Amino acid sequence: MTQQNKHSLFPNIHNDSLTQNIEGLDQDNKKISAKIIKEGALTIFLNNQEIVTLMCILDHPIYLAIGYLLNQNMIGEKDKIRSIDFDKDLNLIVVRTNKKTNYEKILKKKVITSGCAQGTVFGNIYEEIGKIKITSKIIIRHKWIYEISKKINQIPSLYLEAGAVHGCVIINKNKPIIYMEDVGRHNAVDKISGYMFLNNINPENKIFYTTGRLTSEMIIKTVKMKIPILISRSGFTSWGVEIAKKTNLTLIGRAKGKRYTILSGHKRLKY
Amino acid sequence: MTQQNKHSLFPNIHNDSLTQNIEGLDQDNKKISAKIIKEGALTIFLNNQEIVTLMCILDHPIYLAIGYLLNQNMIGEKDKIRSIDFDKDLNLIVVRTNKKTNYEKILKKKVITSGCAQGTVFGNIYEEIGKIKITSKIIIRHKWIYEISKKINQIPSLYLEAGAVHGCVIINKNKPIIYMEDVGRHNAVDKISGYMFLNNINPENKIFYTTGRLTSEMIIKTVKMKIPILISRSGFTSWGVEIAKKTNLTLIGRAKGKRYTILSGHKRLKY
Repeated sequence: MTQQNKHSLFPNIHNDSLTQNIEGLDQDNKKISAKIIKEGALTIFLNNQEIVTLMCILDHPIYLAIGYLLNQNMIGEKDKIRSIDFDKDLNLIVVRTNKKTNYEKILKKKVITSGCAQGTVFGNIYEEIGKIKITSKIIIRHKWIYEISKKINQIPSLYLEAGAVHGCVIINKNKPIIYMEDVGRHNAVDKISGYMFLNNINPENKIFYTTGRLTSEMIIKTVKMKIPILISRSGFTSWGVEIAKKTNLTLIGRAKGKRYTILSGHKRLKY
Repeated sequence: MTQQNKHSLFPNIHNDSLTQNIEGLDQDNKKISAKIIKEGALTIFLNNQEIVTLMCILDHPIYLAIGYLLNQNMIGEKDKIRSIDFDKDLNLIVVRTNKKTNYEKILKKKVITSGCAQGTVFGNIYEEIGKIKITSKIIIRHKWIYEISKKINQIPSLYLEAGAVHGCVIINKNKPIIYMEDVGRHNAVDKISGYMFLNNINPENKIFYTTGRLTSEMIIKTVKMKIPILISRSGFTSWGVEIAKKTNLTLIGRAKGKRYTILSGHKRLKY
């Protein structure tokens, strides 16, 4: 059972299709049944074009597909989505828009990013991102950072059940409202992005938390989603910090226990 | 100064070009200088073809380029490498072989993998991998698993200096001999692979340790490198375990403190 209120969505740890029990041995040579995360392949079509096959957790294929297309600049906010068809047997999703998209142009230019390290960014996302300035004046209170981390750690999750996944969370003030997980941290962000888009959730007064590192792709996706504050328990990379500064994103990392480091946009932080 | 003996190579924490100090604030609103990892873009050419631009740590560009091409099946063990030219100003590397490569065929088929989640695997690696059986009869002793983890944690590393990187280590019995790091865990593996290839190091009696999760790409790269035992402090995914079982790879995960879980190839483990 997914805990779902209006605009809130948390991991569904009761969906047995997302994990698998595998027989193994522990450190004492004792037979154990280890619960591990289950990956599936999701193929995304945009209109008549096959775009990609993603290995992912198949809990939210529609949000993932829409978020992927949005974050790769393959559909824009102004594109009207005509239909979304998901074939559960084939794990195939077809997104149809009301006009031709620019995927052909986009597919031509490809940069492999570092976070994972073989993340792929299509098109001119890097050039575009430099022009964006985040103007949201929301604040984050010092103590919310602790409260947010603590609350997230206590929400039942596939991570706590089976490990080996990343989580991304949308937060309203100090309250987690949307929590998505995936084997790939980019997939987790894309699921969030798709959910927010389809549910018309205002990003400009939200805080974004990721368990993953603050690499350039993570910063770029956050900026593209227009979320003004990004928190992670993990560390920074130089390019990520550079983009955060340029775009006026508040970047809080190494948020563990009672510690954190803020390397960009500290005007939004209130002590 | 890199600690380097014959066939041993550890992180070079004294290379200032790999990290950067950024001014920021800590949790007490105190100004701090945070050391963070520095990414650079490395562009790889194979003969006359531009293959990819990787965001990476630029400590071992040649090993990274060769390992990338090997692990993407773009060069094979039997290809003779005629020259490797690295342009330090452009961060451009050109690898020339003695015959035409099959990159064109390979570039046609592309699957985005999940580990990061937008890792890209070109060509028919998934089909190929199913046919490989690891036959090495080396063993790993129960207590080595603890010793290996402990030793790796104590080796000075960019991770300990600046965080936000993954490490991969080649181990001989219980002794770490090659330790590579990168923002992208795939880059770290590729660096290892390039180093072993160029230095003719026998993989079949080695153990491989990664800080990253045991996702399918990591398993595939290990199998392609012909290393029989893979250890990680992180968790498993179902597809990774499946490939490990099929190929007879020994897979030890969740190796933390006094605990670990072995989900494949336990015949190589001696208590």
